[in-house]
Amino acid sequence: MKVLILGGAGMIGQKLAHDIAANGLSGDTAHELILHDIITPPWNGKGSPTLLTGNISDPETSTALAASKPDLIYFLSAIVSGDAEANFAKGWDINMRSAWNLFEAIRAEHEASNGRYKPKVIFSSSLAVFSGPYPDTIPDDFFTAPQSSYGAQKAAVELLLADYVRKGFMDGFSMRLPTICVRPGKPNLAASSFYSSIIREPLNGQEAILPVPETLRHWFASPKSAVGFMTHAASISASQLGKHLSLNLPGVSCTVADQIEALHDIAGADVVKLIKREPNEAIQNIVMGWPERFAAKRALNLGFQADKDFKAIIQTYIDTELCHK
Amino acid sequence: MKVLILGGAGMIGQKLAHDIAANGLSGDTAHELILHDIITPPWNGKGSPTLLTGNISDPETSTALAASKPDLIYFLSAIVSGDAEANFAKGWDINMRSAWNLFEAIRAEHEASNGRYKPKVIFSSSLAVFSGPYPDTIPDDFFTAPQSSYGAQKAAVELLLADYVRKGFMDGFSMRLPTICVRPGKPNLAASSFYSSIIREPLNGQEAILPVPETLRHWFASPKSAVGFMTHAASISASQLGKHLSLNLPGVSCTVADQIEALHDIAGADVVKLIKREPNEAIQNIVMGWPERFAAKRALNLGFQADKDFKAIIQTYIDTELCHK
Repeated sequence: MKVLILGGAGMIGQKLAHDIAANGLSGDTAHELILHDIITPPWNGKGSPTLLTGNISDPETSTALAASKPDLIYFLSAIVSGDAEANFAKGWDINMRSAWNLFEAIRAEHEASNGRYKPKVIFSSSLAVFSGPYPDTIPDDFFTAPQSSYGAQKAAVELLLADYVRKGFMDGFSMRLPTICVRPGKPNLAASSFYSSIIREPLNGQEAILPVPETLRHWFASPKSAVGFMTHAASISASQLGKHLSLNLPGVSCTVADQIEALHDIAGADVVKLIKREPNEAIQNIVMGWPERFAAKRALNLGFQADKDFKAIIQTYIDTELCHK
Repeated sequence: MKVLILGGAGMIGQKLAHDIAANGLSGDTAHELILHDIITPPWNGKGSPTLLTGNISDPETSTALAASKPDLIYFLSAIVSGDAEANFAKGWDINMRSAWNLFEAIRAEHEASNGRYKPKVIFSSSLAVFSGPYPDTIPDDFFTAPQSSYGAQKAAVELLLADYVRKGFMDGFSMRLPTICVRPGKPNLAASSFYSSIIREPLNGQEAILPVPETLRHWFASPKSAVGFMTHAASISASQLGKHLSLNLPGVSCTVADQIEALHDIAGADVVKLIKREPNEAIQNIVMGWPERFAAKRALNLGFQADKDFKAIIQTYIDTELCHK
């Protein structure tokens, strides 16, 4: 099977590619892996995947990628929400038009092959398709009313994907991932960055800033679970999802206080002391409107698995990032 | 005020244009009217509007239309659902890409004018953005999961419009119209065509075919109400809608039996006898999944008005179409 990962240099793309190279996919280890990104995807794993560089919003890129006829395409490429909000045209180009171009290129190959070519596309969508007010537990059929360009772009690609799949040009579905935590590496400019920082920095002996009240509740998955969602998705077809091809994924719902308590249990009081309270109204205004908990019943019934709890999420970070240092 | 009607040769576009020419809009009668369509819009009303012909999916069309700086744009142009389903690329081009092109052209004019140019766009959306199973009364925040290309295209334009409005490039919102009934003229190939035929043909002394059970319930508005929705929309800004810029409009919920009873009350038993039962499974498969009733609370609170009942809908047809023959 030929597997193409768009956004192959990104955090999830890299972990997914290395996981597939090491463990195979759906019980099959004879994969041809292709990683594509705007920068050359790094590689230190098993085998030698094809590493491609290019602009995904360039139609020729989509044409060339579809012409290589991958069987499975992970669409993980995107610019982040802050970038999409600051650069309107770039956001719609990279986060939406690129997907449409790819789906059109797939349709052309599908038709040129008299329907024999019909790849599966797994699209990485986002909780940003939603806006509040939310019920305590958000049902699978909660309506989309994005309040960011990033969210609108993700929701628009969900619509496109669903129509291309419904028409039989390709297989696939969209997965709305929880906020990924603990992200390895350095803090970034995302409003959600502190969710990883308050765990990661203290575990590395550094101070971290907590800009929000400890009562704030949100929805999380570890990078390991995110990779698990992706590999599990390879075994699932659109027909198993019924008419609604956008899936809210399972996660861990917890408050900042729960996160800190889990860190205390694992690493002790001295580590927790490295978290400094510095309320930041700008960050609060963004993240306090975020969803707190999803039912994710359909995804659970389809076998998608969340982390056990936030302690498990921290332990995943320690096991996969700190122990290799 | 300069008013542009896209789809100006269509049934609603024509009625809207003639209404604005005769009665003004928002109390202002000094309008410059521009009608645009793929065919030259007919005109037999007051004044002499500009009648433009062109392909709305051609980017130069959008650029030229935005350069003329209309203050209010009614986006009514579309190919119908059957055409969009049969001609996939054409449907996405005309029903979706054209709107994106127009919004981009508006954004360019907005930015070139340092934000002074900020028109209002009223987008004609559809119940086809939804799919069942439905609750008895569909709430304003029911989720969208279109099961036709037409519905997916309408839902995608709703997302685009909401993001361009949220960013301040333009004002406006999307209105999901009930099924328009009684349509004047001849039956067409739409699955919904019989809803008008079973009233219109008997009133004109002709037989009509009823392909569905009389228990089937659906959601209707007269062409007169549709024009009323459009003219009322001119007085409403996106800010009055809050974060969710797609509005389910009010209508009349009734069964086919209710429709026939109303026709009987107005025109008598001999007219009703012209309705022939010929069950058609293909039509039933399409229309029996359609929504039956909407709450439309937000639209009602904003002053949008439905027809009083189905008798009023029939009377509108008689008054506006038959009395002028």
